[in-house]
Amino acid sequence: MKKKFKKVNAAILIIGNEILSGRTQDKNVTFISNWLNLKCGISVEEVRIIPDIEKKIVANILQLSKNFNYVFTTGGIGPTHDDITAKSISKSFKVKYIYHQEAYRILEKYYGKNKFNDGRKKMAKMPEGAKLIYNPSSAAPGFVIKNVFSLPGVPSILNSMIDNCKKFLTKGSQTYSATLNLYTVESNISKKLELIQKKYKKVDIGSYPFFRLGKIGVSLVSRSVSKQLLKKVEKDLRDLAKKKKIKIFKI
Amino acid sequence: MKKKFKKVNAAILIIGNEILSGRTQDKNVTFISNWLNLKCGISVEEVRIIPDIEKKIVANILQLSKNFNYVFTTGGIGPTHDDITAKSISKSFKVKYIYHQEAYRILEKYYGKNKFNDGRKKMAKMPEGAKLIYNPSSAAPGFVIKNVFSLPGVPSILNSMIDNCKKFLTKGSQTYSATLNLYTVESNISKKLELIQKKYKKVDIGSYPFFRLGKIGVSLVSRSVSKQLLKKVEKDLRDLAKKKKIKIFKI
Repeated sequence: MKKKFKKVNAAILIIGNEILSGRTQDKNVTFISNWLNLKCGISVEEVRIIPDIEKKIVANILQLSKNFNYVFTTGGIGPTHDDITAKSISKSFKVKYIYHQEAYRILEKYYGKNKFNDGRKKMAKMPEGAKLIYNPSSAAPGFVIKNVFSLPGVPSILNSMIDNCKKFLTKGSQTYSATLNLYTVESNISKKLELIQKKYKKVDIGSYPFFRLGKIGVSLVSRSVSKQLLKKVEKDLRDLAKKKKIKIFKI
Repeated sequence: MKKKFKKVNAAILIIGNEILSGRTQDKNVTFISNWLNLKCGISVEEVRIIPDIEKKIVANILQLSKNFNYVFTTGGIGPTHDDITAKSISKSFKVKYIYHQEAYRILEKYYGKNKFNDGRKKMAKMPEGAKLIYNPSSAAPGFVIKNVFSLPGVPSILNSMIDNCKKFLTKGSQTYSATLNLYTVESNISKKLELIQKKYKKVDIGSYPFFRLGKIGVSLVSRSVSKQLLKKVEKDLRDLAKKKKIKIFKI
């Protein structure tokens, strides 16, 4: 019996002036995107990076949560004045921005009653009705409300929390990928490659030039929910390489 | 006499399935953003990463070119079937997608008449009326049309071309930044920090936790078009550190 393909998609919203200004290299997009695909069969179909400005966060949350099955935000849920993600998401969904009782208890226990100051308390404030995403590294939880998941910006903390998002997600069909690296230039194979792409409409074939150890080459990356189709495409690509006398590069 | 502040902004549109899928780590955002700010006084205020799908490219080009002074696209201007940026931008602006005579001559000369095949010729096709952004590394030029700049996705090639964008750009006021790294946690300083931010409305103060050599700390990044204001903020931040007996971390 043929397995039915179930498409589930997501968008990532990176909130943070430090990424936009070029000061900090984002690492969360590759991590979240790979995790979503491999662990949940969910494809990331759009990413946006926006500044810490309430109006922009509100508008983007509304737009992305409408257009995608899930939205993952990163950044802006810490204790300082520029952490405005939770408040802005509350505004997006027109719900109160209030203390989450369990988050409050978790943080109070973690810091101790005497050291639980206003900044730390702020990290327990969330949109009313939000559910917690537990944080095994630094206590302060993320949260889910409707189809929006809010995670911190620090990659090591985000990475430690992401598995706790799973229970809130509906799984889709995983997209598999296969890569073939050829010692050639794109324009040498572009015509034949287009024919192969046209033959297999349910496979996405991407072509990416690379420079490695002083040699140039092309990575052909095929992506599909069908492993069988990927094998067929790979055979055609290997035949193309053979005909053109192109060496295959093994990594 | 007070210098008048001139705000010029830009958006970056990264076009490519390989970035969205998490296969490839984008490096162009930090590079373009830093270059625009340092060399041209232009602030990047939004980034989007979208797949190689014509409809999506057209919609995003229209939206971003309307909302920002400039738009920089990366990716999708090579010779293969998945390179659809130039064609899509032509559709966005309802102009023809045709051979650019000079680009054609440059590429024909570079490859030699006998080796100038269809894939290579494709790289000379652009929106009608586009101007060339010369490419010193691999000949195939980028292009500008209206306020949209199209650059390749390969970082080394993009980096070698970017200075050739300058002549098409109106300069703005540069944003300066100053960083102070403190050995503390955010929640220890969040209250005072908020007061300092409120005192200096024309400075953006960002607070970013870091982990380095086994120690935790906070980077306070102040950004402003006024160097004088940055100095004042730094003084207040140093006073705050002194009062709280927080060590300053020198990199």
